[in-house]
Amino acid sequence: MKHNFGAGPCILPQEVFQEASEAVKDFNGLSILEVSHRHKDFVAVMEEATDLVKKALNVPEGYSVIFLQGGASLGFSISALNMMRDTKRASYINTGTWSKKAMTEAKKVGYDVLEAASSSNTNFNYIPKNLKVDPNSDYLHYTSNNTIFGTQFKGIPQSSLPLVCDMSSDIFSKEINVADFDLIYAGAQKNMGPAGTTLYIVKDDVLGKSTSSFMPTYLDLKTHAEKESMFNTPPVFPVYASMLNLRNLMSNGGVRGAQERNEAKASLLYNEIDSNPLFEGTVAKEDRSNMNVTFLMKDDSRMDEFNTLWQKNDLVGLKGHRSVGGFRASMYNALPIESVKVLVDLMKHFSSKG
Amino acid sequence: MKHNFGAGPCILPQEVFQEASEAVKDFNGLSILEVSHRHKDFVAVMEEATDLVKKALNVPEGYSVIFLQGGASLGFSISALNMMRDTKRASYINTGTWSKKAMTEAKKVGYDVLEAASSSNTNFNYIPKNLKVDPNSDYLHYTSNNTIFGTQFKGIPQSSLPLVCDMSSDIFSKEINVADFDLIYAGAQKNMGPAGTTLYIVKDDVLGKSTSSFMPTYLDLKTHAEKESMFNTPPVFPVYASMLNLRNLMSNGGVRGAQERNEAKASLLYNEIDSNPLFEGTVAKEDRSNMNVTFLMKDDSRMDEFNTLWQKNDLVGLKGHRSVGGFRASMYNALPIESVKVLVDLMKHFSSKG
Repeated sequence: MKHNFGAGPCILPQEVFQEASEAVKDFNGLSILEVSHRHKDFVAVMEEATDLVKKALNVPEGYSVIFLQGGASLGFSISALNMMRDTKRASYINTGTWSKKAMTEAKKVGYDVLEAASSSNTNFNYIPKNLKVDPNSDYLHYTSNNTIFGTQFKGIPQSSLPLVCDMSSDIFSKEINVADFDLIYAGAQKNMGPAGTTLYIVKDDVLGKSTSSFMPTYLDLKTHAEKESMFNTPPVFPVYASMLNLRNLMSNGGVRGAQERNEAKASLLYNEIDSNPLFEGTVAKEDRSNMNVTFLMKDDSRMDEFNTLWQKNDLVGLKGHRSVGGFRASMYNALPIESVKVLVDLMKHFSSKG
Repeated sequence: MKHNFGAGPCILPQEVFQEASEAVKDFNGLSILEVSHRHKDFVAVMEEATDLVKKALNVPEGYSVIFLQGGASLGFSISALNMMRDTKRASYINTGTWSKKAMTEAKKVGYDVLEAASSSNTNFNYIPKNLKVDPNSDYLHYTSNNTIFGTQFKGIPQSSLPLVCDMSSDIFSKEINVADFDLIYAGAQKNMGPAGTTLYIVKDDVLGKSTSSFMPTYLDLKTHAEKESMFNTPPVFPVYASMLNLRNLMSNGGVRGAQERNEAKASLLYNEIDSNPLFEGTVAKEDRSNMNVTFLMKDDSRMDEFNTLWQKNDLVGLKGHRSVGGFRASMYNALPIESVKVLVDLMKHFSSKG
């Protein structure tokens, strides 16, 4: 049994692996890999996956749930293109890497991009609160959780603009109010399912109103909303595995249950980081992510020793991202608190024998 | 044991299903669904998949092999965008549905699209041979095999223009000369692997030369060639299963072996269609597809009876597309000749008791 703290693609429930494995061998007499996407059995899968997203997040009437491909990297372009109105100005909160990529793609499709706030001055170790939002922007965009720097929005930014959010790394990990947003997008490969599909939740009022002169059919969310994610062949297996994972989520207390477990895991680890004399967190306490816990060793000279220790104890993926250094413990929905306890015990043990 | 004649996503070898199923449970101690795409074990998978494509198709030096997402539907836009030069004129051979969609997307990104030839006058039941190609076009585009109408190019169109080809439904089914093409693209879900990844084989000279003012980073093939398909999180499982399938292909005689088997299957079924008094083919004989065999019943009154018969005998996916009617037997690489024999025997039996 490995303890998978990897940043993504990441751990999913063991039951999901078992069920998905079985369907690759036998899904109503065929392999799920050879079933036509137009077959009623897969149409039912797509419908269930869509319904489960709606149930899990209490998606209100007037929103469409869509499964696409291309990851958030294509989502940066799709979101900007679909939100484009007359001003061609867009405001972005810059919390590092992913926000910056989103801003780059908005510029590439013709936007004048305004930085409403940024925490670049301190290597993105906090969520900027004072926004200077251009009121003529078509929308305000933010990244709800930053996997690299370990920051997370605890609420939504205060603004009267339509909100667009890249929730790739914390969707389904905590309750949200979908009605606050015009558009949410999220690569699957954290809390929704395996890599290969991307979720869009879009207010129907948004669809078909883009003023962009450039709009390939695949990038137009109206296409996919009307065809219920079946405009072209969807990524059948990633959608199927996501459906299994969402079923698993709903039968384990839904998003509220996941949120409670995630808060317990985060408390456990952050408490250890704050009380252990050898370690320190990298992020302003109020902005710490419950998904990606970034921390350093105060005295770098024992880094190798600790790296050897966790690797020997079947922990996986704890190495920090090069932009921050140190360690990063990603604790997505499916990571059991027992794995966090193993890590915390190792930190205690390591400290005591220092 | 079902006989899967479905048009796609379609049958793959049973060994591939078994191996893929196993990896969902255990891939070096984790599930393949939870492995980071940056982990050396998955980097090795991506490299092997890329190398296998190069080996299978004898891809010459000076070409890049890329795995993306979005299917041919996004490929229509990506191909047009990346091939765009000064003239903004492009020539397309129209062999039905997929060609028409490709033409639509080329127009959407700013091309003046010229129809070099079309078989629309007879519901696309042949491959047009007389081309009127505008010599100032940036490229000539064609669809090598049409899944709906059951037509297939037996050679390449004669033209001095750079060739772009959508090979979604026949790549790896027969030998090709990659050097004939500037750009090949293909959705995986026929002969390469499960739905969820799309193959691009592009001449390196093509990269970075687009004159399009619009070029999202994800749509720029240069991005992905430089990052070796790892610009962003790739569709891990679809790429892994494609790698398994390509391994299987190479250990069974490679593309030449597949071609011989496909020709034998096609001969068997077309011979029966031509000799059985109840059935008739829909396509000009010299243009018949070895992948998708379309045929009708001369007397429609026994349609229901035959439909009941094949369904009772564990045949799957034989219903014709609504654009043609009748029957469509898709016989991709993994369909064993034994399945074709079952179909042919049913046709004989049905005819004899008529």
